[in-house]
Amino acid sequence: MEKRLKYAMVGGAKGSFIGPVHRMAVRMDNLADLVAGAFSRDAKKNADTAAEIGLDAGHLYSDWRTLLAAEKGHIDFLAVCTPNDSHYEIAKAALELGIDVMCEKPLSMTVAEAEELGRLAKRKRRVLGVPFSYSGMPMLKFARDLVAQGEIGKVCKVVLEYSQGSFRKIDLTKPLDVRNAWKMDPKRSGPSCAVADIGVHAFHMLEYVTGLEVKEVLADLSSFAPGNRLEDDASILVHFKRGAKAFLNVSKVATGEENGLRLRVYGDKASLFWNQEANNYLEVKKPFEPTRVYSRKAPYMAALSEASVRGQRIPAGHHEGFIEAFANIYDEFCAAVRTRRERDFPGAREGVRTMRFVEAALASHKAGGAWTKI
Amino acid sequence: MEKRLKYAMVGGAKGSFIGPVHRMAVRMDNLADLVAGAFSRDAKKNADTAAEIGLDAGHLYSDWRTLLAAEKGHIDFLAVCTPNDSHYEIAKAALELGIDVMCEKPLSMTVAEAEELGRLAKRKRRVLGVPFSYSGMPMLKFARDLVAQGEIGKVCKVVLEYSQGSFRKIDLTKPLDVRNAWKMDPKRSGPSCAVADIGVHAFHMLEYVTGLEVKEVLADLSSFAPGNRLEDDASILVHFKRGAKAFLNVSKVATGEENGLRLRVYGDKASLFWNQEANNYLEVKKPFEPTRVYSRKAPYMAALSEASVRGQRIPAGHHEGFIEAFANIYDEFCAAVRTRRERDFPGAREGVRTMRFVEAALASHKAGGAWTKI
Amino acid sequence: MEKRLKYAMVGGAKGSFIGPVHRMAVRMDNLADLVAGAFSRDAKKNADTAAEIGLDAGHLYSDWRTLLAAEKGHIDFLAVCTPNDSHYEIAKAALELGIDVMCEKPLSMTVAEAEELGRLAKRKRRVLGVPFSYSGMPMLKFARDLVAQGEIGKVCKVVLEYSQGSFRKIDLTKPLDVRNAWKMDPKRSGPSCAVADIGVHAFHMLEYVTGLEVKEVLADLSSFAPGNRLEDDASILVHFKRGAKAFLNVSKVATGEENGLRLRVYGDKASLFWNQEANNYLEVKKPFEPTRVYSRKAPYMAALSEASVRGQRIPAGHHEGFIEAFANIYDEFCAAVRTRRERDFPGAREGVRTMRFVEAALASHKAGGAWTKI
Amino acid sequence: MEKRLKYAMVGGAKGSFIGPVHRMAVRMDNLADLVAGAFSRDAKKNADTAAEIGLDAGHLYSDWRTLLAAEKGHIDFLAVCTPNDSHYEIAKAALELGIDVMCEKPLSMTVAEAEELGRLAKRKRRVLGVPFSYSGMPMLKFARDLVAQGEIGKVCKVVLEYSQGSFRKIDLTKPLDVRNAWKMDPKRSGPSCAVADIGVHAFHMLEYVTGLEVKEVLADLSSFAPGNRLEDDASILVHFKRGAKAFLNVSKVATGEENGLRLRVYGDKASLFWNQEANNYLEVKKPFEPTRVYSRKAPYMAALSEASVRGQRIPAGHHEGFIEAFANIYDEFCAAVRTRRERDFPGAREGVRTMRFVEAALASHKAGGAWTKI
Repeated sequence: MEKRLKYAMVGGAKGSFIGPVHRMAVRMDNLADLVAGAFSRDAKKNADTAAEIGLDAGHLYSDWRTLLAAEKGHIDFLAVCTPNDSHYEIAKAALELGIDVMCEKPLSMTVAEAEELGRLAKRKRRVLGVPFSYSGMPMLKFARDLVAQGEIGKVCKVVLEYSQGSFRKIDLTKPLDVRNAWKMDPKRSGPSCAVADIGVHAFHMLEYVTGLEVKEVLADLSSFAPGNRLEDDASILVHFKRGAKAFLNVSKVATGEENGLRLRVYGDKASLFWNQEANNYLEVKKPFEPTRVYSRKAPYMAALSEASVRGQRIPAGHHEGFIEAFANIYDEFCAAVRTRRERDFPGAREGVRTMRFVEAALASHKAGGAWTKI
Repeated sequence: MEKRLKYAMVGGAKGSFIGPVHRMAVRMDNLADLVAGAFSRDAKKNADTAAEIGLDAGHLYSDWRTLLAAEKGHIDFLAVCTPNDSHYEIAKAALELGIDVMCEKPLSMTVAEAEELGRLAKRKRRVLGVPFSYSGMPMLKFARDLVAQGEIGKVCKVVLEYSQGSFRKIDLTKPLDVRNAWKMDPKRSGPSCAVADIGVHAFHMLEYVTGLEVKEVLADLSSFAPGNRLEDDASILVHFKRGAKAFLNVSKVATGEENGLRLRVYGDKASLFWNQEANNYLEVKKPFEPTRVYSRKAPYMAALSEASVRGQRIPAGHHEGFIEAFANIYDEFCAAVRTRRERDFPGAREGVRTMRFVEAALASHKAGGAWTKI
Repeated sequence: MEKRLKYAMVGGAKGSFIGPVHRMAVRMDNLADLVAGAFSRDAKKNADTAAEIGLDAGHLYSDWRTLLAAEKGHIDFLAVCTPNDSHYEIAKAALELGIDVMCEKPLSMTVAEAEELGRLAKRKRRVLGVPFSYSGMPMLKFARDLVAQGEIGKVCKVVLEYSQGSFRKIDLTKPLDVRNAWKMDPKRSGPSCAVADIGVHAFHMLEYVTGLEVKEVLADLSSFAPGNRLEDDASILVHFKRGAKAFLNVSKVATGEENGLRLRVYGDKASLFWNQEANNYLEVKKPFEPTRVYSRKAPYMAALSEASVRGQRIPAGHHEGFIEAFANIYDEFCAAVRTRRERDFPGAREGVRTMRFVEAALASHKAGGAWTKI
Repeated sequence: MEKRLKYAMVGGAKGSFIGPVHRMAVRMDNLADLVAGAFSRDAKKNADTAAEIGLDAGHLYSDWRTLLAAEKGHIDFLAVCTPNDSHYEIAKAALELGIDVMCEKPLSMTVAEAEELGRLAKRKRRVLGVPFSYSGMPMLKFARDLVAQGEIGKVCKVVLEYSQGSFRKIDLTKPLDVRNAWKMDPKRSGPSCAVADIGVHAFHMLEYVTGLEVKEVLADLSSFAPGNRLEDDASILVHFKRGAKAFLNVSKVATGEENGLRLRVYGDKASLFWNQEANNYLEVKKPFEPTRVYSRKAPYMAALSEASVRGQRIPAGHHEGFIEAFANIYDEFCAAVRTRRERDFPGAREGVRTMRFVEAALASHKAGGAWTKI
């Protein structure tokens, strides 16, 4: 048996959304042990988190600097689950100490920072992961593979909606909901809200599924939630490099939507439909054939897309969800940590591309809706 | 019993799509008798159509001018189902003779012509209908009424897709499919293909459901089908007059789509979801309540939207489709013809607005994606 | 052009469900003219119906006997839309006069009567239709054709639900809702309610789609609606002749259901799923292939099932519903009336089989759940 | 922090379906450490499993007797994942040693054995869990709570399908598929196949959701798969104690189905629809209201059903699946192990009831379809 991996976590205290997801994902496939943490600057919350997850108090730290100083050499990787404004400095410090890093998106506050992290990881030969979680969903891997195999022909148009209604659930006349507050605060989240928070998932999905690079974007941003200083809605036109186009709707004020992430990829031979809220299925439509609905890990899937069945845990019809998708990303990330080889998960490149997208979208909007290079 | 209405039809020969739909729609509710026709310039096709529908050969004409000359005074209205380039002159001639007109969309080749028809109809006190067929669908009337009643609050964003794959079913290496050929031909269809053909339905729906006026658009047009000189795909950003926005995807090359017309209207209190391919239902989503799925003519509907149940023929669960929607438009049109009062159907105003939209979209694209007033 | 058909109607006054459906169905494809009627024993209702549909008062009759006496020789067929208890005598009288008949289901109150009508029609060489309306739905014809072509292999099991909640919409503490009242009254509807009213549709569908004959049934009937003397719910086990089985759920008290008619046919090679509330689609599932969703009148359909596209009016994606299905049955019926040849519509045989089913189900239940031959 | 729980597992080697699910479920919420195992009688498979999951070879045993002898006093509970025929003796031995047990279903081969285990657990004051996994699904807990709160009124009828096509994926001309082989073998699985394997889930769901006790059943069993000696399909009529009825379809030969578990509960005020393949939603239908679609962990859920949100990990719109449902059962089971109090998970009572159901179904079928008491 191989030596078990050990990891530490910064941020992600009890009660946050994404910290527990990282921990569950790592545990699901028994990938690594969480051996150290600095979960919150709030001492009580920090201690409560350690207690809940059974972490020895001797490895609980009040801040990430202390943690890194104490644990370097003892951990295989660091999971960074803090608000956006500290991603860069924490990831940088860890990489410089030779520690592999899984860092929440967006990777940084600026493109320059993201690029620097990418270069640093390369120079230090470190593994840097950025969990664009939906790319861990098996049927999206299948979509990517179908496109790459030429099954839908030349990609022409992508229509992608990422519509959440989360900001409609906040009573804006009162102090902001604790969990989402920092997402509306330029100091903590950076200059973008909806685009940086969920638009980056959508952008990543565009390039991930099509295998194409985006050339330029044209963005029309809005702040519909009263009192919100950052954009909470975006309509974005996209030009890929070889003539394909996309249409991207991103919203945090799509009243009543839960996590409405819907993808349609139109090629000249066929099209693909995928809906995150029914993510175990993928539809393929051709002009002269009935619609085909493929199902996660159905018996025919292995022959069509090895990546989509790799690591899959349970048979078709018994659904895997968001946590499993996250675990799929960690599976590949931990394999890279162990083997030092490239694996199938998003990393520095994707972190940089999505940051460029955020900057281009903001610039395009500022210019009144001008096509802006990425 | 009232005197039965009589009507004549120009265009719409046997084998065309929309001509038979007009005839079935009129017959469904027993609204009028078809007493004269000039269905095709092809004499055999013309005669075959007359024979099929049981029209007395004495009232079959080789062209619309002859028809109008002979039948004026004998018909209550004229249905115009010819290709786009003749709509204007036929409608104009009929109106000038004092005949009410139901004219297929787009109403004309230019805004100026559409406006002229509108003025002419007003001056002559004639009824002019333009069958934007989806507005005859009961659940879309319900959507309009819910918005007007304030049920979804202030409209913020509309996402509307009208995606067909019809041009992917044409073998473009061979002479064009007879039925669709003229749609790709600038001489017959005018300077726009996808936008003028189906984009106008989408635009009409935007204003119909929201009750708002569109202020300006920004369009990115494409010609993805090889050899197509007109646009077959459009990504269009929309600004309404009071701050709301919309995102419009229009395509004739959306491979594998049949008639993918999907509408989402996001207000600050609730949102509405409607899908033409399941048009007997409407979903309403609110932040703190389960999604509600309303059903055509369910027992609770009459109290919520009189317009949505008016003329409805069969109980909830037994579906009405496209022909019934068309009949709903004719019900209202014929009521206007009989009563000379305003009724609930699209007419000159909608014909003009949609033509402005086509021109603005083309101009915006030509300018490299500039916001263009409507 | 062929001589137009003429028909008369008995029952089916304004405000009833099925009478107007017959009339719309006949008009939709311009099949025949309604030239005489005896719509209601209520003189005012009778006159109002005639006025609404534009029937000359000279051909309006107070009862069916007078109608038949006056119109024999002038009509091509008679549509019978009265309550169940008069079907037999009206159909019998018409057939004896040499008039073709479209008679609402159930064809009679007893098996013996149905058999007699069948023999009479045969002897008189008359066309007798019984509109089991769902068999006019194109995708159900497709299902039948797929089974007949061996596409699903040997049929093993059918699961069929026909669940309506209509009796939950009646305030049973008050006098019964006028339209449904007679369905709960043994004198008018016969000894069965749910089974005779909608179970017969389900039974017909079983034999229609599978091409198999039912051998025996075992029924468990219930009267859940307070005060209802007839059964309003039935669980029925079915044995076909060659080893296949079916499971039939029939209910008028399925609270909240509209017209929940759902069919699953399992063969040893594939299965078919069809849902009346989305009736333009049919799903086919095979063990080692993605689910296929076929769409009404899609371009590939003509090659697979001529019957499913025959008479279809509009392209895939523009839906046809219940009235169109009814028109499809009338298309075939009228073709038989014109040509005197066998066509694809349900008739005497189906009328007799469904009556046998009703009697067997009642007998099985009375015997405490015994297998009872049909 | 509380002392961490320790557990051992018997059966459930690498490559099996349910063993890994137990392990992932326990890890997901960090409930206990797996400290000992006897996974397979095949020594290599046993060792490979230990290696894969990181179990110290010193705690790996060749059989369950040795494991229990060595580990008693060191483990808090035992997970039993062996084929059906050994459940009874292993669970009995563990309980007698004072060890809490989570035992796969069916709990035993006979009712008498199941009852004995129930009595033994009670006498020894041990926790005995039987993972009827679907009852761990949040929206099914919600369904149960809605019924208990009277939201749907008096339950009248339940329609429940559990249709799998798994036996259609086996090449029956060759030696049976290794994983499923024992399910068709009376010696290993007992006298029933489909009913004991998945029918018990369905039966448990009936009583779980309605809160009612089943009084009697009438079963019609079939063996459609060639060469299968046990039933692979069952149509079962159910009478509950207070007048309600159910209709149960159970099949392993439902060609093309994956895990088709669909539930409809009809009360006299409303009905509930739930489909395992979209298990994060529950539909509620009332006669005079639009259908409501409730979503797992939506903001309104906590007030409606505490049980449905307890332990839920991620927000609405990010789906939880089968493994999470299993983890929910282990959450409650482990809480019972820690606190020695009753919690919300299926146990001895459910194990016994489902065994009685299996025996009654077999007896009813043998008697030619007689109502048989449970």
